[in-house]
Amino acid sequence: MKRIAIDMDEVVADFNLKHLHVFNRDYNDNVTLDDLMGCHLRDLRPHLIQEIRSYLDDPTFFRDLDVMKDSQEVIRALSEHYEIFITTAAMEVPASFTAKYEWLKEHFGFLDEMNFVFCGDKSIIQADYLIDDNARHFKRFSGQGILFTSPHNVNETGYVRVNSWLEVRDYFLR
Amino acid sequence: MKRIAIDMDEVVADFNLKHLHVFNRDYNDNVTLDDLMGCHLRDLRPHLIQEIRSYLDDPTFFRDLDVMKDSQEVIRALSEHYEIFITTAAMEVPASFTAKYEWLKEHFGFLDEMNFVFCGDKSIIQADYLIDDNARHFKRFSGQGILFTSPHNVNETGYVRVNSWLEVRDYFLR
Repeated sequence: MKRIAIDMDEVVADFNLKHLHVFNRDYNDNVTLDDLMGCHLRDLRPHLIQEIRSYLDDPTFFRDLDVMKDSQEVIRALSEHYEIFITTAAMEVPASFTAKYEWLKEHFGFLDEMNFVFCGDKSIIQADYLIDDNARHFKRFSGQGILFTSPHNVNETGYVRVNSWLEVRDYFLR
Repeated sequence: MKRIAIDMDEVVADFNLKHLHVFNRDYNDNVTLDDLMGCHLRDLRPHLIQEIRSYLDDPTFFRDLDVMKDSQEVIRALSEHYEIFITTAAMEVPASFTAKYEWLKEHFGFLDEMNFVFCGDKSIIQADYLIDDNARHFKRFSGQGILFTSPHNVNETGYVRVNSWLEVRDYFLR
């Protein structure tokens, strides 16, 4: 059975939606997802880079992110034909460990928690496929990288790209 | 540069010493490391299996484990010739995430935290070597498993075995 490793933020968990919401609320701003095309919030508001980052030090930040559309149904279907691992660069945000674990148990409870991986450098991942919004993780990954479209990566070229979980389904279960 | 993945409990962190100490203290018992040869504490005291396990639900349990003798010096030396990752089955004890991270930062701060991996099923680990006290992790591991001697595994045969960190040094840096 082939193995698919799947990232969390911006792939199964809607990080941007909450991050923009709390930022706009706290700084009386109106940044939209369209503004994030090809960049990050920190690039648009560099004078607030510390504040933008500090949201991630809140241990509860990642607990109530929305689930990305169709991800549950598609991953459940994939899990009948592939070994599924969730592989998140949680070491970049150590405060998030418990929230990320609880979020996965709540929304992807049909997966075995022995298949959850909190890592940093994803070259440690042994899998046939890696679905991720950060192309940098594909550089030393030995399998096939699949770039999940997120505003910040829209200008990246040279990768297999999927724009939605329905496109993931078509890629693997066509 | 070849890559060595290294387990935590009973390999770099002295789990047994503390576990036995708190158990003997709380249950007025006198179990020794010699008693654990070829088995686990739960096998010796099956009527207390829940209590034995429940220590691991304490978020602070793993924070003050002793460092295994010579592990810091040898891993520092290995890190000049090999890529080092710490790979621990933390998903088995989700309460331990923060304590394990802080413990690694305190005692192995010379390693990049991007090379820390909290996982469950270690077949996800892409490495040339895995030093672990649980031989079950070698079954689906694609590299060379190296069994680090711990009381529970003394009767395991058929694996490359090291009895100390000085033996690890000799294996890799001979």
